[in-house]
Amino acid sequence: MDTHTIDTADDPEPRPEEETPWLTAREQRMWRAHLEVAKLLEYQLSRELQPHNLAINDYEILVVLSEAPDHRMRMTDLATATLQSKSRLSHQITRMENAGLVLRQECPGDRRGLYAHLTEQGWETMQRVAPDHVRSVRAHFIDRFTPEQLDAIYEALAPVAEHLRGLRGRS
Amino acid sequence: MDTHTIDTADDPEPRPEEETPWLTAREQRMWRAHLEVAKLLEYQLSRELQPHNLAINDYEILVVLSEAPDHRMRMTDLATATLQSKSRLSHQITRMENAGLVLRQECPGDRRGLYAHLTEQGWETMQRVAPDHVRSVRAHFIDRFTPEQLDAIYEALAPVAEHLRGLRGRS
Repeated sequence: MDTHTIDTADDPEPRPEEETPWLTAREQRMWRAHLEVAKLLEYQLSRELQPHNLAINDYEILVVLSEAPDHRMRMTDLATATLQSKSRLSHQITRMENAGLVLRQECPGDRRGLYAHLTEQGWETMQRVAPDHVRSVRAHFIDRFTPEQLDAIYEALAPVAEHLRGLRGRS
Repeated sequence: MDTHTIDTADDPEPRPEEETPWLTAREQRMWRAHLEVAKLLEYQLSRELQPHNLAINDYEILVVLSEAPDHRMRMTDLATATLQSKSRLSHQITRMENAGLVLRQECPGDRRGLYAHLTEQGWETMQRVAPDHVRSVRAHFIDRFTPEQLDAIYEALAPVAEHLRGLRGRS
């Protein structure tokens, strides 16, 4: 049977198991290397943030807010920027509010909801932690590539990131 | 001040903020592309497993067990293979046991603990879901690279994965 012909009168149902070939050995090893690096790197970076009492997602929020005008951002936009669901972000912001790192603020004259605002303590925490975090990112990832590899990986990943952002935006 | 001299009599403390340079623009864009692809891809693959009532970690367990001799693995080894903590794995196996996908079994004559064993239903689930999952992995990741990019990324990531596995093993 021609595995590319899936829409004949005899066989109107797609037959995914015949349509899509399995990964080849070369594809497989790359896929596994990607998964492994993604998972192990997150683990290692989280571990190295522990002495600062920060989860890796907390650190990301601090970075995003510290780069935002007036150190604040609408909760909806912060969820988009950090690729989290609104409900999950809301729990996280509650924890960070309890730790004194951010404040939730109503937005005067704007019914579209709440802002998350970096506190002075949040800003100081970010500045104190950032050098350690950069050192971790360099030691376990960035400094392990040649400049050519850095560029080649970027060129390869950027369109994939754009594709995935598009899918996420529609969901 | 010479930022590379950190161990003088006047200044015995390491000064990380001066030691480690920030990421350059080229490093930064690659780092962000990696983070974004890792996060968005996990999100998308999870989404596409939802119709099968499987979390992405469940799927991974099914794959690892289906590749193991006799479809079973010591819990400790399964935790290592899936890069999870033993306590987190234990919770996950409980959920999967309730769903009928795996069984915990004592190991006759082996005090070193329990095995996780793929059930017939777990094996059937894996076989039913795998074609869909491969299609997702191809559509959102693998098929978006040239063969040269696949190899270049593998060559770049493999030593990083090895480095990170080494750190994980020591922890």
